[in-house]
Amino acid sequence: MSDKPKQKIKLLISYDGTDFEGWQRQAAGQLTIQQSVETALSTMLNERILIIGSGRTDSGVHAEGQVAHFATDKEIDGRSFYSGVNSLLPHSIAVLKAWKAPSDFHAQQSAVSKTYRYLIYNSPIPNPLRRRWTTWLRRKLSVEKLNEICKPLAGQHDFKAFRTSGTDVKTTVRKITELQWIERENKEIEFRVSGTGFLKQMIRNIVGTALDLHQLESGAAGATEMSRILASLDRREAKASAPPTGLYLHKVDYPRELDNKCLEI
Amino acid sequence: MSDKPKQKIKLLISYDGTDFEGWQRQAAGQLTIQQSVETALSTMLNERILIIGSGRTDSGVHAEGQVAHFATDKEIDGRSFYSGVNSLLPHSIAVLKAWKAPSDFHAQQSAVSKTYRYLIYNSPIPNPLRRRWTTWLRRKLSVEKLNEICKPLAGQHDFKAFRTSGTDVKTTVRKITELQWIERENKEIEFRVSGTGFLKQMIRNIVGTALDLHQLESGAAGATEMSRILASLDRREAKASAPPTGLYLHKVDYPRELDNKCLEI
Repeated sequence: MSDKPKQKIKLLISYDGTDFEGWQRQAAGQLTIQQSVETALSTMLNERILIIGSGRTDSGVHAEGQVAHFATDKEIDGRSFYSGVNSLLPHSIAVLKAWKAPSDFHAQQSAVSKTYRYLIYNSPIPNPLRRRWTTWLRRKLSVEKLNEICKPLAGQHDFKAFRTSGTDVKTTVRKITELQWIERENKEIEFRVSGTGFLKQMIRNIVGTALDLHQLESGAAGATEMSRILASLDRREAKASAPPTGLYLHKVDYPRELDNKCLEI
Repeated sequence: MSDKPKQKIKLLISYDGTDFEGWQRQAAGQLTIQQSVETALSTMLNERILIIGSGRTDSGVHAEGQVAHFATDKEIDGRSFYSGVNSLLPHSIAVLKAWKAPSDFHAQQSAVSKTYRYLIYNSPIPNPLRRRWTTWLRRKLSVEKLNEICKPLAGQHDFKAFRTSGTDVKTTVRKITELQWIERENKEIEFRVSGTGFLKQMIRNIVGTALDLHQLESGAAGATEMSRILASLDRREAKASAPPTGLYLHKVDYPRELDNKCLEI
């Protein structure tokens, strides 16, 4: 045993969530991303490693930039760390970057903002090369109409109507700092949303509701209905969740003073 | 039985080849793309349908634009055809377009040119969101050097040195009409090649050899070696095949007079 305080390591992780039961460690027999990363790190560093993520992602949800941290006594060397951990991970997970982080860094508690992307393949004909990465929708969507429908959601609100129960939280108030539907190339439409945090399945519930309200005669009518659902604070008023395929945890932001104290290895 | 001659139907098909044993129908128990399409069409049209593709693709190879044809007595209706066949196909295969084709159209024999793309993810760190779609290579590649190395392959040659045996062909002479390495965004490099036809694994053997020769001190040295290998007509002189992941059958071209006689349904 060493008296030296352990070194905190911050990780940037990307994964194809298709074949996992989400991020969060589960009972034996369920393959999760957290467990896979812990197993790879424990094998490489030859000690029991537990990691803490910025938050959970549901089964089937992907990540371009999940953040996690762990603490270790071992010396971490840049070159061998990346090739070591990535060769021990399944092909559907990779550690993109790692930093020596200050002792007060916490992947979940220090996070100040998260950005998610939701991709829709919008065409009468499905695209087999994008089925794993997008949700396919036949009927023609208007990005302008979707933006109008979702406008009432910007800012700080009690998002209880868009929360799937199952996780204890102190408050269901969250702040959406940015929210936009964007036309992408190759028949794809992206919903990009940033906020201080999100409730369980909140983004999928928002997307599902927006796509449902898109069938109303106008964006204004959809916005009125979206406002009413938001104010109801009742999950039964919102529409069905959109599928997890298509949802990406894009990035997690931390205060600049913490970022400045992280040293890339 | 009807005396009416059968109608030829031309299909444009896309697939994610990852989980298939290639295009070509196999013994029972092997999942192939040809079989999957035949099963979907036979179910929908309620008759035994056999399809003929423009050519085989190997196990794991993808297609953005494979072409096939079949003949049927049944009346094909556009709207219900696309939704019908695609709902019967696995998510990894889709019929993108269908045409009523003239009786002299033959997906394989009428083809005048094929274009393939080979995608490489070129970064020290793997990308889990692209592992299914690219071949990952750590060491930094120069597109200029690869273009210089592959220059001797342009034009008509006996490509016997780049042919994996296993299929009977009358001649191993083929003509490469276009061949180019291109820098793409997001750390990807593309090899795009068009020709009158390709021998078994010819593109993967060319890519594998080019990547190996890239380690020589200069593009000129690589080109000299590529010329020597080509002239040897000996498969043992060429290097190991590049993996099928990353290879796409991009498009198949037919004479304009045939295209003009195809009527989209």
